[in-house]
Amino acid sequence: MTAEPLLTAAAPFSSAERAAVYRAIESRRDVRGQFTARPIDDATLLRLLSAAHHAPSVGLSQPWNFIVIRSDAVKQAAHAAFSRANDEARAMFPAERRALYSALKLEGLLTAPVSLCITCDHSRGGPVVLGRTHQPQMDEYSTVCAVQNLMLAARAEGIGTGWVSIFHPADVQTLLGLPAHVSVVAWLCLGYVDALYDQPELQAKGWAERLPLADLIFADHWGQRAD
Amino acid sequence: MTAEPLLTAAAPFSSAERAAVYRAIESRRDVRGQFTARPIDDATLLRLLSAAHHAPSVGLSQPWNFIVIRSDAVKQAAHAAFSRANDEARAMFPAERRALYSALKLEGLLTAPVSLCITCDHSRGGPVVLGRTHQPQMDEYSTVCAVQNLMLAARAEGIGTGWVSIFHPADVQTLLGLPAHVSVVAWLCLGYVDALYDQPELQAKGWAERLPLADLIFADHWGQRAD
Repeated sequence: MTAEPLLTAAAPFSSAERAAVYRAIESRRDVRGQFTARPIDDATLLRLLSAAHHAPSVGLSQPWNFIVIRSDAVKQAAHAAFSRANDEARAMFPAERRALYSALKLEGLLTAPVSLCITCDHSRGGPVVLGRTHQPQMDEYSTVCAVQNLMLAARAEGIGTGWVSIFHPADVQTLLGLPAHVSVVAWLCLGYVDALYDQPELQAKGWAERLPLADLIFADHWGQRAD
Repeated sequence: MTAEPLLTAAAPFSSAERAAVYRAIESRRDVRGQFTARPIDDATLLRLLSAAHHAPSVGLSQPWNFIVIRSDAVKQAAHAAFSRANDEARAMFPAERRALYSALKLEGLLTAPVSLCITCDHSRGGPVVLGRTHQPQMDEYSTVCAVQNLMLAARAEGIGTGWVSIFHPADVQTLLGLPAHVSVVAWLCLGYVDALYDQPELQAKGWAERLPLADLIFADHWGQRAD
């Protein structure tokens, strides 16, 4: 082993390449209502999964699995689990917000041609994983990095992604037959889109507002503003 | 409010743009030893933080804060916290792996010009957050999406990022004065790089191997292979 094996030059991207990366990041939207019926072929889907698989992972443990769901029966069962949970969710909000909550479309489970469940295997990499010794949640965080990679690659492919989180995890655990050492990190709906919101849908529909970035930045210590 | 306000056309990216997105994803590396001393100016750092701020967040709650650390005293205290935890971590591995563990460089806290702590405020968005009603960890997952956005934007800028996870979270909580309702999601080292590993450093140095992607993909149900 040499001192620094396999290092290669790494320049900044060209300005056009850099702009493409920022455009994927800035124009990605969580999609619920804009999925078209156009099928996603296996080669395209594999590019997306490979993007996910290139995420950083704690100790190179790669704790993710990808369950590609094209079965109508499974999608319908997921939709039923969503609907039950969403009825519970609606009731948790103050009365004055419930009408707007009900008017929001929060999933596209039955229209997206593909659903994708991304899981985290907590046993991957063995009982002691480098970098996870003091922060056990790092395996889930690695898996979320894979999710975000996939959503950005999908944007570049013209494919919209919608993350559905309104269900009891145990319902999905049972539906997909996940072992006890594997947990659900994300259920994504995937489908080609012809249009996207030009701002987050929850902002467009008056549910929430973007926060000013400057308010979220501190210098050296919580609460301390830069000079 | 119209039925579908603010939808705009969303075509796939050009092939050159798509390639740039995939290149950022595939050539990003976790950096520990390659940081140069070149400073990161405020405008560049703000582009990276804006990329993070464009991450999806549950219920548009945007639970993240960004603590930009340029203070040598804070970096040195973080390094001391790392060193204590790393001594504990090393002892958790089987004896035959400890020599290699000790030979790995696992952080660049004292050489990277900037450290960035990205936190999750569990009170952001109020007591009930849309999409978090049944999965409370969704706020942390949103924050991890912001981390991954930032790491990809940094790659495009020629800036390397290294995620340091070997410390007791309580040490960082105290060091940065985080309130109890705010938790650490990531401590990143940031600095310009001239070279990167062409494969994950832990693979290059014989600690772990990439898994074949095909082994991680199932169809419709855990354990079920596609036809």
